[in-house]
Amino acid sequence: MNEKMISVAVIRRLPKYHRYLSELMDEGVDRISSSNLSKIIGFSASQIRQDLNNFGGFGQQGYGYNVKALHTEIANILGLNRHYKTVIVGAGNIGKALAKYSSFKRFNFDLMGIFDNDSKKIGNVINGVEVMEDDLLSDYIKKHNIDIAFLCTNKTSAQKTADILCDSGIKGIWNFTPVDLDLKEGVVAENIHLIENLFTLTYFLNQESK
Amino acid sequence: MNEKMISVAVIRRLPKYHRYLSELMDEGVDRISSSNLSKIIGFSASQIRQDLNNFGGFGQQGYGYNVKALHTEIANILGLNRHYKTVIVGAGNIGKALAKYSSFKRFNFDLMGIFDNDSKKIGNVINGVEVMEDDLLSDYIKKHNIDIAFLCTNKTSAQKTADILCDSGIKGIWNFTPVDLDLKEGVVAENIHLIENLFTLTYFLNQESK
Repeated sequence: MNEKMISVAVIRRLPKYHRYLSELMDEGVDRISSSNLSKIIGFSASQIRQDLNNFGGFGQQGYGYNVKALHTEIANILGLNRHYKTVIVGAGNIGKALAKYSSFKRFNFDLMGIFDNDSKKIGNVINGVEVMEDDLLSDYIKKHNIDIAFLCTNKTSAQKTADILCDSGIKGIWNFTPVDLDLKEGVVAENIHLIENLFTLTYFLNQESK
Repeated sequence: MNEKMISVAVIRRLPKYHRYLSELMDEGVDRISSSNLSKIIGFSASQIRQDLNNFGGFGQQGYGYNVKALHTEIANILGLNRHYKTVIVGAGNIGKALAKYSSFKRFNFDLMGIFDNDSKKIGNVINGVEVMEDDLLSDYIKKHNIDIAFLCTNKTSAQKTADILCDSGIKGIWNFTPVDLDLKEGVVAENIHLIENLFTLTYFLNQESK
């Protein structure tokens, strides 16, 4: 298996396979053909066969895929076979919502700390985790080997905070700010640009009503 | 101008152009060349010229783009030259965070109502908007001609709620649930699949540390 050769487009489809395979497991389904998987997931059967061929012999002609084995393999590829230590930076509306979101814990994302620069928020406890002052962020990341920061600051603090995170040895930044971050080599980021997503919706909405 | 011919990939880049052009306007920049725009936005200059050529003559050889005119045109294409009436369905963590998010108002997304099926939440006021019971959702959408619903229910209620929204004449659904919705023809949706985005981050994070 040579993961380095897998295209980004395939990688971005993997979490969706993972989700549907989880649901099939919950329903007690042991095996599924690419054509039945196609019906529920919405990719073509040939797309599915092509995608999953990247990861070796999970499909058997005439027998379909072993749901549990495929689920485990995809989870491993996505790096879900381990724990991640996370912090939230910015205890505003989005930061607080993420702190309370129960799915992260279930998937082994352990929220270690929440940081904010607003003295009124310091000491508040959100979902059992205390809000600490921003000045402690760098030392905390180093000391606890934090893997991922959920970046939920305002726009003006985003890049400056990202610089601190990078310099402190963070490995990944999940970016909820409306800023495209400049990051140190080796630090990865994924962006949730809410407003941009909403504007795409309004574009398509107006196309429909023409 | 034939918008129907513009590829989805270009459309998905437009909100980013819109964001950077807003920033340039804030900085008082009147004109910008494709090569300077390339430096700040991170797309190649030829990509930018190609993208913006879709929308007619905004670039003038040797003179660059008129920032304000281009910004206005992109805003119009994205449908940002009008107001949208919105509701939030599901007053959990994400729903509450969206209700408090100030940028929507600024871009003329008017939050009209919040709906939930939890009797303990009914009557609560979030950012000046009252939480109403789910049973009133359908009539409310019809009566007030709601354009867009922000769908923030739990997983099990998602499709059922989407059906009600479609039957009540909603035009767009901004979907925060981890469900791929089946929608009536003519209703558009954009998805924020948080967990899937996070799993993509862990994939790339693990590639980096190999």
